[in-house]
This record gives sequence, structure tokens and C-alpha cells, in this order.
Amino acid sequence: MSLPATLDTSTSCCAPRVTAAITVEDAERVARVFKALGDPTRVRLLSLIAAGDGGEACICDLTAPVGLSQGTVSHHMKLLADAGLVTREQRGKWAYFAITDGALDAAADTLRSV
Amino acid sequence: MSLPATLDTSTSCCAPRVTAAITVEDAERVARVFKALGDPTRVRLLSLIAAGDGGEACICDLTAPVGLSQGTVSHHMKLLADAGLVTREQRGKWAYFAITDGALDAAADTLRSV
Repeated sequence: MSLPATLDTSTSCCAPRVTAAITVEDAERVARVFKALGDPTRVRLLSLIAAGDGGEACICDLTAPVGLSQGTVSHHMKLLADAGLVTREQRGKWAYFAITDGALDAAADTLRSV
Repeated sequence: MSLPATLDTSTSCCAPRVTAAITVEDAERVARVFKALGDPTRVRLLSLIAAGDGGEACICDLTAPVGLSQGTVSHHMKLLADAGLVTREQRGKWAYFAITDGALDAAADTLRSV
């Protein structure tokens, strides 16, 4: 692929003036986390978990506040867990979720370092 | 909607133990920003712009590093601009983009306060 001509002829050849500050692999990793955060229900679920007793919440207490079925909430929680944002622990009948230590801070740090 | 029964009968009635820490409106606003960030190409474009001279970049210099057509890059840039993450300035033939002051910090702060 060739660069399109630019109005600034002094720098229009040879090399792009802009070079990547993040690798493709890092961008993919980061985007996966942000994609998981890019849904209002998942943002609310994270916020509910963070506000729960001991920073955790039973899925049985997450359905009513967001007004969705347990199946739908489970699907959202799976996406958050796959992105590494929450951890899941089964206790008897119910799954409990907690915010992964450092995950939100790490995502925030990435944003600040972009 | 009624809460499902829980194993912990001492708290299974009356009120959810978990209450929302973020409003629906705030969650929607936040999720829009994270959705824009939830794509590896857009993360790379933001990173390229931040690394550009003066913290800005001409769209003509963004196509080659990501290996995409100008039309595709323009589409990604529109999503980033709509989310308030970049500002756009037309200079003659080309559009120049800069990271919106404070936008990434604000998103990072939101993550830390979840």
C-alpha cells in the first residue's frame, strides 16, 4: 500500500510521519477488554458488583436491579469473565462474582498511556 | 420482577442486597465511549494520533500503519469522534485528528470509580 500524496511535500515521501505506539497484539488485548465494557448493562453489572458487600455479588441479586432474566445476566457475566474483568465462584446453587483485582486499574492505565 | 430465592434466607426477602452505584444514563454514556474503544483498529488509531507530532495526525498518515483504506479509516475516526475521543479539523484536502483533551483521563477515572 502506498501513502496518499499530502499537501506537505517536505514530508510526503519515504516514511509515514506517524508510527505505531502500540503493537497489534496489545491493541487486540486492550480492545477485548473495552469491548466487554462497551455495553450499558455490563457497566451496570460491574458497578453493582463493586458496590456489593465485600466487593462481590450473587447472580441472584443482579437480575432485579438490571431488570433482565438470569440467562441474559449470565451471558453478560460470561463476557465480563472472559475479558478478565470479573472472577466467578460457585457456592451451592449460585454463582458469585467479584471484580478481578487490578483489572479496572490496568485498563485505566492503558487508556492513560495511549 | 421478583428476586429469585437465595440460599441465604436471612437476606432473601424485601430488598436486593445490591443496589446500583451508577445510573442507567451514566452507564449508557460510559458504554458508548468503551464501545468506541472496543476495536483493535480504533485502539491503534488512537495510539497513532497520540504518538503523532503535536499529538495530532493527518488521516493521510493513518491509513498505511493500519493497512486499511482511507474510507475504512474515516469510518473508524467518525466513531471515535462521535464518542468524543478525538476532535477533527479540516485543513485543505485533509482531515486532521487530535485526542480530545481529558477524554481518555475521564474514561480512566470512570473505570477507577466503578
